[in-house]
Amino acid sequence: MPAFSNRLSGITGGGDDGWSLFYRARALKDAGEPVLELTIGEHDTRTAPDILDAMAASARGGHTGYAAVPGTRDLRELVARRLQSLANIPYGPENVLITPGGQSALFAAHSLACDHGDTALLFDPYYATYPGTIRGVGAVPRAVAARPEDGFQPREADLMDASEGAKSLLINTPNNPTGAVYSDATLEGIARVAEARDLWVISDEVYDAQVWEGTHRPFASMPGMFGRTLTVGSLSKSHAMTGSRLGWIAGSAEAIGHLINLSTHTTYGVPGYIQDAGAYALSRGPKVEAEVAAPFRRRRDMVLARLADQQAIKAIPPAGAMYVMLDIRATGLSGLEFGEMLLDEERVAIMPGESFGEAAKGHIRVALTLPDEIFAEALDRLFAFTARKLAEKAA
Amino acid sequence: MPAFSNRLSGITGGGDDGWSLFYRARALKDAGEPVLELTIGEHDTRTAPDILDAMAASARGGHTGYAAVPGTRDLRELVARRLQSLANIPYGPENVLITPGGQSALFAAHSLACDHGDTALLFDPYYATYPGTIRGVGAVPRAVAARPEDGFQPREADLMDASEGAKSLLINTPNNPTGAVYSDATLEGIARVAEARDLWVISDEVYDAQVWEGTHRPFASMPGMFGRTLTVGSLSKSHAMTGSRLGWIAGSAEAIGHLINLSTHTTYGVPGYIQDAGAYALSRGPKVEAEVAAPFRRRRDMVLARLADQQAIKAIPPAGAMYVMLDIRATGLSGLEFGEMLLDEERVAIMPGESFGEAAKGHIRVALTLPDEIFAEALDRLFAFTARKLAEKAA
Repeated sequence: MPAFSNRLSGITGGGDDGWSLFYRARALKDAGEPVLELTIGEHDTRTAPDILDAMAASARGGHTGYAAVPGTRDLRELVARRLQSLANIPYGPENVLITPGGQSALFAAHSLACDHGDTALLFDPYYATYPGTIRGVGAVPRAVAARPEDGFQPREADLMDASEGAKSLLINTPNNPTGAVYSDATLEGIARVAEARDLWVISDEVYDAQVWEGTHRPFASMPGMFGRTLTVGSLSKSHAMTGSRLGWIAGSAEAIGHLINLSTHTTYGVPGYIQDAGAYALSRGPKVEAEVAAPFRRRRDMVLARLADQQAIKAIPPAGAMYVMLDIRATGLSGLEFGEMLLDEERVAIMPGESFGEAAKGHIRVALTLPDEIFAEALDRLFAFTARKLAEKAA
Repeated sequence: MPAFSNRLSGITGGGDDGWSLFYRARALKDAGEPVLELTIGEHDTRTAPDILDAMAASARGGHTGYAAVPGTRDLRELVARRLQSLANIPYGPENVLITPGGQSALFAAHSLACDHGDTALLFDPYYATYPGTIRGVGAVPRAVAARPEDGFQPREADLMDASEGAKSLLINTPNNPTGAVYSDATLEGIARVAEARDLWVISDEVYDAQVWEGTHRPFASMPGMFGRTLTVGSLSKSHAMTGSRLGWIAGSAEAIGHLINLSTHTTYGVPGYIQDAGAYALSRGPKVEAEVAAPFRRRRDMVLARLADQQAIKAIPPAGAMYVMLDIRATGLSGLEFGEMLLDEERVAIMPGESFGEAAKGHIRVALTLPDEIFAEALDRLFAFTARKLAEKAA
């Protein structure tokens, strides 16, 4: 039989990155065990009925044929307007490509920025698919650590040191898994390096509707950054439309032109009725997004209240997104050991920090994705477990 | 500003491939001109209401979260069973990856077969996106002519001569644009070369429900070919679900495993409610597919009847798919010239043969995609136009 391509054989990078824990938890749950899952970034609510009504109406109305590959005019315009309203970035519909989800947009953006063998930068900790996305286009990921002691805000000097010869930099604010929202100082440092190294900046802003402290500043709005920025967005998190796979890339019209050509040869567009549902969702404005985000803010505050009652577990209060990163080094356990034992002893599933790179070792990521009462129960078990491990360690 | 990747800058291969004519026709139509479009492979009917009902029910029932990346168990099983029933190929659900459309499957398959700089074979004439799909994964397309005088059945010797050092071969039967259905002899020749050259065979069989003469034989059912074949399918043509972007790749379980990893980093799965709609559609069996296909058979026969009335235009009666390829060399015009004049003088839009490579020069592709009465009117205009051009040439 012929060989598989090196690009695909090596896409995961090999090794156990802690996702085995996720799959074990899922298998237990599927087998009927009452596992409380605080793992992936999926809402405990489903897509709102009125959005599904808009989709069904569009499909019944006949929007079931090939949609225009770049996206419908309506949706491109609404996405552009949303970005304008966030930071007055001069995006118009010609600056927007609709994609089947944010992941697809990340892949396309790296495909535009990098050729085979090029170096693509990312910050560690990172969302689990980032290195594989870079390998998937034949480029080479190079991670730059963001440090817990800096609240996971990356340092300009670290980035400058690591970026020689690189073609692109992937940033993510509000950040998964850390909950950091990049400060103006952080963004200005990144912009200086991007300019100095002539980097493409691929800015994953899918959590832009979930900000608890400070303000989300889109990277494309930084002075001089418009042309070199590819902004990735999605309705997954903002509108609880994860399964609908509806996202976008915004960039210069020339960049979008090339990306439309890529879409013609990869996805050939996105279902028209899903785009119509997305246009309906966006047309309802930011109030709906705030409603979808509210439970995560509430649960984040629940975690912070618990943390105040004890000393062992530490956390940088997350400023955004759907997660809290907890520093569990006081237990003497690795994130993965902690996660395995927590699942065995308490039937609570979290993601070990090791799933997101090197920089988050000794941490766990707790997703804020269970209804409040069940979430409170999961926290009870998590903190009881931690107290027990600390006592065992002291004994 | 940083440079765009060479891969994306060069994805279209440059030059006017006749699609300007398609876009001109579309613009005229959008401006209110009564253009009769016989261009792209899209049904004149929409997706059936019961399929849309199944989709709406699934979405309202809560299948709006992330679906399993490989596809739902149900749909993978139904796709495997459909392939089994066609030719007793031992496909099970673990041999199937669900993709957002056949185009996405073609891209993924080439990504698995080819690394940067590898040679990927295809037959000319070809579906318009094929060379760009190959370039999109960083591979180099090499076209092998299928000759009009052979009814566009490729010759084993031509393929053997062209295939040294190649990694993959893309085949398409029933064929777009030619309507050829590969004979057993053709498939056996391809299998011998695939074995001799150790090629991946990517077999695009999206028209497998539209066969007017002979039998479609899936390439994976050829002796010894199972492991090296990646079969691409879709519900677009068989169930008039073009806009829903629902397709698949079938292959060895090991190949599918790598392709699931690619999906995790590109599309991250396909909407669950669309998969449920697809599962419903497939569960209704082949009778529904025959109903969707029936109009194309009817219109194909209408074209053949017209051809019998005259001598100038020739055609190889298409054995399958949604198109007739007409040889218009008697007019002295190129396919593109013919198409431009036909649009100007008769407001009928076709695709010039030049849009599909070199081998179909002097041909036009007529899509069988208008309701019978309007299609008859379009044929009236087409044949009147041809008679006029022949008279002008003789004068």
